Amino acid sequence: MAGSVYGTLFQIMTWGESHGKGIGVTVDGCPAGLPLTEDHIQRYLDRRRPGQGRFTTKRQEGDQVEILSGVFEGKTTGTPIAMEIRNQDQRSRDYSDIMDVYRPGHADYTFDQKFGFRDYRGGGRSSGRETAGRVAGGAVAARLLEAFGVRVQAYTRSIGEIQVAPERFQLEEMWKNSLYMPDQQAAKEAEAYLNEVMAEKDSAGGVIECVITGLPAGVGDPVFDKLDACLAKAILSIGGVKGFEIGEGFGAAALKGSQDNDGFCLGPEGRIRKTSNHAGGVLGGISDGAPVVFRAAIKPTPSISRVQKSVTRQGEECELEIKGRHDPVIVPRAVVVVETMAALTAADLLLRSSVSRLDRLQKIFDGKGKET
Amino acid sequence: MAGSVYGTLFQIMTWGESHGKGIGVTVDGCPAGLPLTEDHIQRYLDRRRPGQGRFTTKRQEGDQVEILSGVFEGKTTGTPIAMEIRNQDQRSRDYSDIMDVYRPGHADYTFDQKFGFRDYRGGGRSSGRETAGRVAGGAVAARLLEAFGVRVQAYTRSIGEIQVAPERFQLEEMWKNSLYMPDQQAAKEAEAYLNEVMAEKDSAGGVIECVITGLPAGVGDPVFDKLDACLAKAILSIGGVKGFEIGEGFGAAALKGSQDNDGFCLGPEGRIRKTSNHAGGVLGGISDGAPVVFRAAIKPTPSISRVQKSVTRQGEECELEIKGRHDPVIVPRAVVVVETMAALTAADLLLRSSVSRLDRLQKIFDGKGKET
Amino acid sequence: MAGSVYGTLFQIMTWGESHGKGIGVTVDGCPAGLPLTEDHIQRYLDRRRPGQGRFTTKRQEGDQVEILSGVFEGKTTGTPIAMEIRNQDQRSRDYSDIMDVYRPGHADYTFDQKFGFRDYRGGGRSSGRETAGRVAGGAVAARLLEAFGVRVQAYTRSIGEIQVAPERFQLEEMWKNSLYMPDQQAAKEAEAYLNEVMAEKDSAGGVIECVITGLPAGVGDPVFDKLDACLAKAILSIGGVKGFEIGEGFGAAALKGSQDNDGFCLGPEGRIRKTSNHAGGVLGGISDGAPVVFRAAIKPTPSISRVQKSVTRQGEECELEIKGRHDPVIVPRAVVVVETMAALTAADLLLRSSVSRLDRLQKIFDGKGKET
Amino acid sequence: MAGSVYGTLFQIMTWGESHGKGIGVTVDGCPAGLPLTEDHIQRYLDRRRPGQGRFTTKRQEGDQVEILSGVFEGKTTGTPIAMEIRNQDQRSRDYSDIMDVYRPGHADYTFDQKFGFRDYRGGGRSSGRETAGRVAGGAVAARLLEAFGVRVQAYTRSIGEIQVAPERFQLEEMWKNSLYMPDQQAAKEAEAYLNEVMAEKDSAGGVIECVITGLPAGVGDPVFDKLDACLAKAILSIGGVKGFEIGEGFGAAALKGSQDNDGFCLGPEGRIRKTSNHAGGVLGGISDGAPVVFRAAIKPTPSISRVQKSVTRQGEECELEIKGRHDPVIVPRAVVVVETMAALTAADLLLRSSVSRLDRLQKIFDGKGKET
Repeated sequence: MAGSVYGTLFQIMTWGESHGKGIGVTVDGCPAGLPLTEDHIQRYLDRRRPGQGRFTTKRQEGDQVEILSGVFEGKTTGTPIAMEIRNQDQRSRDYSDIMDVYRPGHADYTFDQKFGFRDYRGGGRSSGRETAGRVAGGAVAARLLEAFGVRVQAYTRSIGEIQVAPERFQLEEMWKNSLYMPDQQAAKEAEAYLNEVMAEKDSAGGVIECVITGLPAGVGDPVFDKLDACLAKAILSIGGVKGFEIGEGFGAAALKGSQDNDGFCLGPEGRIRKTSNHAGGVLGGISDGAPVVFRAAIKPTPSISRVQKSVTRQGEECELEIKGRHDPVIVPRAVVVVETMAALTAADLLLRSSVSRLDRLQKIFDGKGKET
Repeated sequence: MAGSVYGTLFQIMTWGESHGKGIGVTVDGCPAGLPLTEDHIQRYLDRRRPGQGRFTTKRQEGDQVEILSGVFEGKTTGTPIAMEIRNQDQRSRDYSDIMDVYRPGHADYTFDQKFGFRDYRGGGRSSGRETAGRVAGGAVAARLLEAFGVRVQAYTRSIGEIQVAPERFQLEEMWKNSLYMPDQQAAKEAEAYLNEVMAEKDSAGGVIECVITGLPAGVGDPVFDKLDACLAKAILSIGGVKGFEIGEGFGAAALKGSQDNDGFCLGPEGRIRKTSNHAGGVLGGISDGAPVVFRAAIKPTPSISRVQKSVTRQGEECELEIKGRHDPVIVPRAVVVVETMAALTAADLLLRSSVSRLDRLQKIFDGKGKET
Repeated sequence: MAGSVYGTLFQIMTWGESHGKGIGVTVDGCPAGLPLTEDHIQRYLDRRRPGQGRFTTKRQEGDQVEILSGVFEGKTTGTPIAMEIRNQDQRSRDYSDIMDVYRPGHADYTFDQKFGFRDYRGGGRSSGRETAGRVAGGAVAARLLEAFGVRVQAYTRSIGEIQVAPERFQLEEMWKNSLYMPDQQAAKEAEAYLNEVMAEKDSAGGVIECVITGLPAGVGDPVFDKLDACLAKAILSIGGVKGFEIGEGFGAAALKGSQDNDGFCLGPEGRIRKTSNHAGGVLGGISDGAPVVFRAAIKPTPSISRVQKSVTRQGEECELEIKGRHDPVIVPRAVVVVETMAALTAADLLLRSSVSRLDRLQKIFDGKGKET
Repeated sequence: MAGSVYGTLFQIMTWGESHGKGIGVTVDGCPAGLPLTEDHIQRYLDRRRPGQGRFTTKRQEGDQVEILSGVFEGKTTGTPIAMEIRNQDQRSRDYSDIMDVYRPGHADYTFDQKFGFRDYRGGGRSSGRETAGRVAGGAVAARLLEAFGVRVQAYTRSIGEIQVAPERFQLEEMWKNSLYMPDQQAAKEAEAYLNEVMAEKDSAGGVIECVITGLPAGVGDPVFDKLDACLAKAILSIGGVKGFEIGEGFGAAALKGSQDNDGFCLGPEGRIRKTSNHAGGVLGGISDGAPVVFRAAIKPTPSISRVQKSVTRQGEECELEIKGRHDPVIVPRAVVVVETMAALTAADLLLRSSVSRLDRLQKIFDGKGKET
């Protein structure tokens, strides 16, 4: 246990370094009988791939996934699904600049403190490339959620101080710009801002929003494994995320109870629903049937080409100028990472909620010691 | 596993309902040899206790903790430490108002969806009283951290829109007002605001800030179990928390890399340290030796005495007027809960970090198959 | 995590020392809606209680269980079920004989090595009294299994070299002798043997057999969490157990494949069943619908009143004569411990098997994002 | 979680089917700084490889392991070590005989019950080939144990009724016969017996013994995670194992306390040691410093070429004659699997024992909030 496993019933273990032989993930606990192909996974990986626009690095990774086990005749077998993405871009460049100097905002120093040394090539295990494994695993989770009518969708909510305007929000718009912003005008302004930032040899951050729809009420556990608590961990585990909020989030701190509470009423077919969704779909840590809405704050890319103050591994002060091209903003590529981490979390908790009631379990086992 | 266990090496399991026989916690995995008495625990519980000021409920719980196991001759034995707080205020009041009506902002509806029925007395397991178990367990964690020179301190940062002003911040001031605000003037303004809110039969939220000092660099795991990710889960698992941020948090999303990056330099004795702490003490999910600084957004108390729209368990629309006294703000009592959840998380990850390097382990075991 | 938690979905944590304030267990993950009272638990505890016959110690423990949480209006709520048995026999006797001398066959020496010191009163945490917590937790598991038509029954198969004869086996006979042997004649012979052993100031061991009936085919996981592997751990975790075997067990090692294989045929209603049960109800780690049959080897009680060679904590050789009365054989009291550990294991794996197939899960969730 | 993860601090996840693309394992939690190459792994895999003698199948698997991550400049980095063995023998033979007919003694029927369908090619996930992943992972554990002076060695103790005679036991002899028996004469007799069994179109079982030396006292947890309980699970999780015993094992059930107890005395340098080792190196679930000695009972290979009674997947009775060559005994190839599962267990519990005492932990962290 060094924190490379995520989930309890629907569980993944990831591996791989930026410039090692590849990146991979193994999914354990996916129920048997789910139709799954490499295409389902590849579609998610393609959204994470660099080299797609002006604001992402040019490295041509390809990122072709191969399913190695756990799928037979087009369906999951219930046994582990191993997936692998071989690195194609292992050319040995010169790492002397980062081998011995601790890059500000990166994990170089803390890896050395924790492990005594590190694979410094391209950031090694702390590279953003590590997320390819999560995305592949999360794509399976998303596929499983579909079978229950649950959908997870993330998008860019802001870049720097440029925000999507609620009145211009059009979800499908996100597919038409390389920033995944569901607001045409905001996307244009953000692109202009990023050009400016790049000219300054600087970088930008932003906020990603994610919505889970179709999740039945009753998912999430009451105390430590609250749905929102698990989502918070999932999202903060993504490199560069500095904050998480659900529903009104930090804004709720300044509201009054009468403003923040969601009333209950009867909807179509007499079903109970809420009159608003300030809570973001979670009450007491358990899904309430309304869409689950949360946001993640992403810090500006730490790799900037300006001269920065640092020290060497050997303990001497120095100046560092990071060479090569880097994404001036990681937000667009992180959108699918947020989405798949949310899918992993929702799938896991959905499976867990299947055992919370005796009456539900008796639908599966007939009480005579034999499966019906 | 229904989410009542927290931690991996330093682990707690809590139990108990608001108006059942009591609340309890068992700690497993506390190293042997730590001096521990009921007084150490009681001091933390007393900070969570209601009835301490004008803005907390008058219920006189007492909350006397009893250690039942795992301590012998004043020291932990390495075996489970069971602790129990018997409920003294079980008088059977009339719960007919909340037995059948779903209170807005509470977990009544979601518990019924998840479990089919619920212990409705005083909120049952979803009551804030559940946190007494966490606080008792977290007090042991805090005690353990002390043995390594690590201290965790939380305080109120804002109530409604009234914030502690950085220039007036005085930590010791927090002990002089019932809101635990480290700013005398802000505390007075917040008290006035709360009086106003109470007069309106309404409630308020706020923000809690927490600082962990003395944590060595190298704590936290690189991928899913990042220190900040684990803290986020710990904090969001507290009822009423709607957001978590570390370091610059959501503010980082609007900064540029050159503003957000912390440079490195050499400090006294040639030790490497950072020139600033925008990151909040964590790089790549691993502690960097600087103070860990994070914030939690707390929603306004959902129990308000205004008339609210709701539905009954039987599926009829109705109006609800919650009787009895409730805290107009839970922030002050949540301060120690945030602090102890952070202590549990830091203690667990500190223990885990002891096995990350072969050279460290060889300090414990001498390589000859015999303990030195 | 110091090994005081057992199970994954149906999970218990136990605590307590022999001569501390009490013994307890908390059950997390029991599905909501199961009828449960203290009587259900007490019946199991009474079978473990000492002072019931000539071959068990006279300590009058009483062992009255109190349910502290998780049950409301006679049914489990899905939240943790805490149970406690206060020690009534805490009279402070003189422990000077075992405080400093390592008793052969006991955990005194290994506890000191592991933890640096120990609660030596009555063996502390390593006392057989620790099993009271398991039995109380396992009683809940047995109650849950009943709701699915699954029954677990253990009994004494041998004491010393005196075995139950297959041709005289009568299950109900076990309730008529204090050794829980389902063979009247063997019980008499065993009693005579035990009298002899006691006269020699010595002790005896034996074998316990356990049968699980009604378990549906498909329970247990294929690789590491095989049903038989999990049972083996459960049973070996009981103090004094030195061996575990399932079906033909060690006897299978000397059989040929043609003797050991169970053929398949069609039973009533065209259901597939096996023509024999050499496998003991498990194929590839997964239940096959036949009774699960396993055995546990129990070592002779290590506490004997003969003079034994030992050393002191201070490192001096010495002779030890253990005073007081001890069970000359722990097998009869261990029967219910084996039974409840098996129940915990079967309940946990049964719950886990509910998520192995997509088609089963869709019986619970209707795929439209709403529970049916 | 479908049981494909083993261990807590030193953790592996395995994947792969007999005739899929390959077999693999990822190790998480191996401390950083351990020298490791593919050669270290390959040596263990070679011992499991088929085609080595008259009594193993002729399939030429090769089983070349590739390390994909977690090792840099010849040392483990503390991040996941992914290893993969591509299947080279995927030729599509005709599986019609086992596609629809349940083979006696195999997991065909139970997989179908659990998962609804299965990858029937060569047994799929339930094939003995699955153990290649464990062996690769366990090879890393064995390498880690070496760094602490701990060695694990398994060998064949009996085939059918032919046992290694204690007076002829020579450990190095095991490397000189294809049955891994440390007794030249027993090996010859066993070979003759196996020839006879093969002529009868039948198969044989046996017993494997394993010894762990150099393990310091204090490893293993007192209650559920006893060293012997964890070993029992590890060993029973290997396909075909039907029994586990430690020390005197089932024999202990017939001994008296005075025969079974190990006295204590002082050894060289005044160190405490036992006068005998009936316990097999474990007292109260915790290692006592003596060699840990346990045995595993292996059933006869279920694949025999005799005609057997069975039923089809479609529910019709039939006769089955399994074609092709199969190992008449799996014991020799299982020796290294037992050894590596024991290594995984010992490594995990050794790491866990490093956090059981405050004084040990303070050797790592200096109590001033900074690592020494």
